[in-house]
Amino acid sequence: MAAEIVNSKDGLDEDGFDPAFALHRGGKMAVQATVPVRDAEELSLAYTPGVAKVCSAIARQPELVDDYTWKSQVVAVVTDGSAVLGLGDIGAEASLPVMEGKSILFKQFGGVDAFPVALDCRDTDEIVETVVRLAPSFGGVNLEDIAAPRCFEIEAKLKERLDVPVFHDDQHGTAIVTLAALRNAALLKGRSLGDLRTVISGAGAAGIAIAKILVEAGVSDIVVTDRKGIVSADRDDLTSVKRELTGFTNKAGRTGSLESAMDGADVFIGVSGGTVPESAVATLAEDSFVFAMANPNPEIHPDVARKYAAVVATGRSDYPNQINNVLAFPGVFAGALQVRATDITEGMKLAAAEALAAVVSDELSPECVIPSPFDERVAPAVTAAVAAAARAEGIARR
Amino acid sequence: MAAEIVNSKDGLDEDGFDPAFALHRGGKMAVQATVPVRDAEELSLAYTPGVAKVCSAIARQPELVDDYTWKSQVVAVVTDGSAVLGLGDIGAEASLPVMEGKSILFKQFGGVDAFPVALDCRDTDEIVETVVRLAPSFGGVNLEDIAAPRCFEIEAKLKERLDVPVFHDDQHGTAIVTLAALRNAALLKGRSLGDLRTVISGAGAAGIAIAKILVEAGVSDIVVTDRKGIVSADRDDLTSVKRELTGFTNKAGRTGSLESAMDGADVFIGVSGGTVPESAVATLAEDSFVFAMANPNPEIHPDVARKYAAVVATGRSDYPNQINNVLAFPGVFAGALQVRATDITEGMKLAAAEALAAVVSDELSPECVIPSPFDERVAPAVTAAVAAAARAEGIARR
Repeated sequence: MAAEIVNSKDGLDEDGFDPAFALHRGGKMAVQATVPVRDAEELSLAYTPGVAKVCSAIARQPELVDDYTWKSQVVAVVTDGSAVLGLGDIGAEASLPVMEGKSILFKQFGGVDAFPVALDCRDTDEIVETVVRLAPSFGGVNLEDIAAPRCFEIEAKLKERLDVPVFHDDQHGTAIVTLAALRNAALLKGRSLGDLRTVISGAGAAGIAIAKILVEAGVSDIVVTDRKGIVSADRDDLTSVKRELTGFTNKAGRTGSLESAMDGADVFIGVSGGTVPESAVATLAEDSFVFAMANPNPEIHPDVARKYAAVVATGRSDYPNQINNVLAFPGVFAGALQVRATDITEGMKLAAAEALAAVVSDELSPECVIPSPFDERVAPAVTAAVAAAARAEGIARR
Repeated sequence: MAAEIVNSKDGLDEDGFDPAFALHRGGKMAVQATVPVRDAEELSLAYTPGVAKVCSAIARQPELVDDYTWKSQVVAVVTDGSAVLGLGDIGAEASLPVMEGKSILFKQFGGVDAFPVALDCRDTDEIVETVVRLAPSFGGVNLEDIAAPRCFEIEAKLKERLDVPVFHDDQHGTAIVTLAALRNAALLKGRSLGDLRTVISGAGAAGIAIAKILVEAGVSDIVVTDRKGIVSADRDDLTSVKRELTGFTNKAGRTGSLESAMDGADVFIGVSGGTVPESAVATLAEDSFVFAMANPNPEIHPDVARKYAAVVATGRSDYPNQINNVLAFPGVFAGALQVRATDITEGMKLAAAEALAAVVSDELSPECVIPSPFDERVAPAVTAAVAAAARAEGIARR
C-alpha cells in the first residue's frame, strides 16, 4: 500500500523512485547518548546509584537542572497539525515529518537539540495547559504550523506562563528573514526603510508578524491585505488580530483591492498563497522590491517580477534570494539558550535580522540581499547577536 | 554555587572531584539527524517542499506514519517526579537525570530512541489526558517513578486509551527480572516454582507487580507484607490495590509480622527499603533464595544472607546476581516496537522473563542466576521473545 502511495505522486526519479519517500523511510532523527555506559562503573554514574546525587542536588537547588541535564539545550517543536505548510489541517501525526525536519534543522544549523511534540488537541487552553505541564522537560518552545488566530493566543499565553523562550516560527522566523532581506535591498538601492511604501499580501500569522517587525524597524507606511482587500479600520469583518493591525498599519486609511494598494508601492511582500496579475506588478514604483514568498508557487513569478522590480526574493531554493526561516530559528534559539534567556523579545528578533543582513552586507547585489541557508557564517552571527541582545535587555540568566 | 553542592556530597575521588556530577554536566543525551542536509537538494527533500508529499501521504493513509517518521521507534519516558528512586517526591525537574539515564539505557541496550517527558502535574486524570494528547508523537510509553497507587490507575487508563505499548517499568521491569532470577534459582536447586513458599516484603508498585507475575508463572504460595505486616483480607486498613492483592496471594489467610511470614519460607523477595534482622533470615527454610533488592542498602546484607540462603541476589552491581531492570525494559520495548505491538501483555512479560532466564541456563551457579547487564545476549533474546509473543497473541501490527 505504501508503494502505491509513493508511486502515485509527482517527483519520481528516472527509475520511478521517489527520493523524498526514500529519505523519510524510518524517520529522520534519533536520540544518542553523550556519555558512555560501557561497564558497571559507568552505569553506576549515569544511572543508579550515582544519578541520585544529581537528582538530590537539583531538588535542593532547582537552577542546577540547567547545568546537569539536557533541559537547557533542548527545544520542543510543538504543533497541533492544524496549518501544516500549505497543506492546511492535516492533523498531528501527518505533521510529524515537518516537525522532525524542523528538529534536525535545529541541530544541523544551530547545534540545538529539538524533538517533535505533535499534540492531538485543538483547544487553545488545552494546548497551553499541556505545554505548561511538559515544561520541566525542555528549555524552549518552538511553535509550528498552528492555525491563526489561535497561534497568537497560544504564543501569548505561553510567553506569560513559561520562563523559557517561546517562539512561533511561522510568524517571527519569517518576519526576521524578511526584515533582513528588506534592510539589504534598501541598503543596495540607497533607500531608507522609513521611506518605503510597503504592501503585505496576506494577513495570516506571517503577514501580521512581518507588519509588526517592519514597524519596529522603522517602516512607517504599511498596508496589509487579505482576501477581501486592504485591512482598514472601517471594515466590519475583521478578526481581533486584524483589528489590532489597523492600529499600526494603514495610517492613511486606504481601502480597496490588493491591486489598488500595489499602485505606486515600493515593496510587495507576498505571504498569501494567492497570485498577482502582471498588470498590478507593473504599477509598482520604480526600483521596487518584490518578495513573493508563497511556496511552491510565488504570488508573482520571479521572471515576471524581475521585469519591474529592482530586487526579487522568493521562498524557493531554485531562485536567488530565498527567504528561508532556517536562516533565523536555529540561531535565534541557539543564542537564547546559550545565555539561558527567559524570553525571546522584539529586541532579540530585531538583532537577529540585523545580524543576518550584515552577513552579506559586503557582497550585496540584486541577486544577493540575503545569505544562502548553507552560508556557515549565518548561525554564529545570529546566535551571537541574539545572545548579546538578551544580555543587554537583562533577561539572560548567565 | 554548583561547585559547593558538588563538593558537599560523598563519593568524591582523591582530588575532591565527584565523577557523577562531572559526567552529568551538560546532560547525557542529544538528538541527531539520521539523514543528511548538506545542500539545497537534500534540504528540499528533508524539509520543504519534499516533506509535503510525505505529510500528505500520511494524512491520506495514517498508518504510513510508522514507516515515514520516527514515531514507531521512539518511547516517551514519562514521570511526574513523585517517587524517584529511593528519593521520593522530588519533582519533575529533579527527576530529569533519571529520565535521561533511562533514555540512554534504552538506546544503549535496546537500540530504542527515547526522550524524557517530566510532567509538572500530579492529578491522575491530568497526567493521563496529557499523555493521550501527546500520543501522536511516540510509539510507546514507559512510565517511570510515579508514586503508588496512582501509578496503577495511570497505567490502566493509558493502556485503555492508547494503541501503543504502555509499561510501568518500576512494576513490570522489576517483576520480569525477579521472575527470571527465581526461575533459574529454582532450576539450579531442582525446585518447582509451584512449591516455593514465597514472601515479598513491600507492597508498593514493584511488590504488587512481582506478586502478580509470580502467580502467573505458577508460584502459588505467596505472602506480601507491608509496614504493618502480612497483607491479609481481614485487615481494614488496606488500599484498594492491596485489597486486590488478597484475591490472589495469602490463600492460607496468614496474619502477623514479616518475621512470622519468613519463618520456614523458601523465598524472600525484598522491595521495601526496610531492614530484616538476621534472626528472621535464620528462620528461612533450607536452601532458600534471598533477593534483597533495596538500593543502595539491601534489606538483608548479602554477606548475612549467604550464611542461610542457597542463592542471594541484590539490586547492587558490586555483588553477584544483580536484579537490574535494564535487563528487561530495553528488550521489552525493542520487541514490542519491532512488530508494532499495540500493547505489552502479561504473555509478553512472561516471555521476556523466560528468555532472560534462558540466557544463562547453561552456566547456572549460585552466583549466576541472572545475566550481567552487559551480557550482549540479553537484549536480542528478550527482543525476539517479546516480538514472538506479541505475534502469537495477535497484537502485532507487522
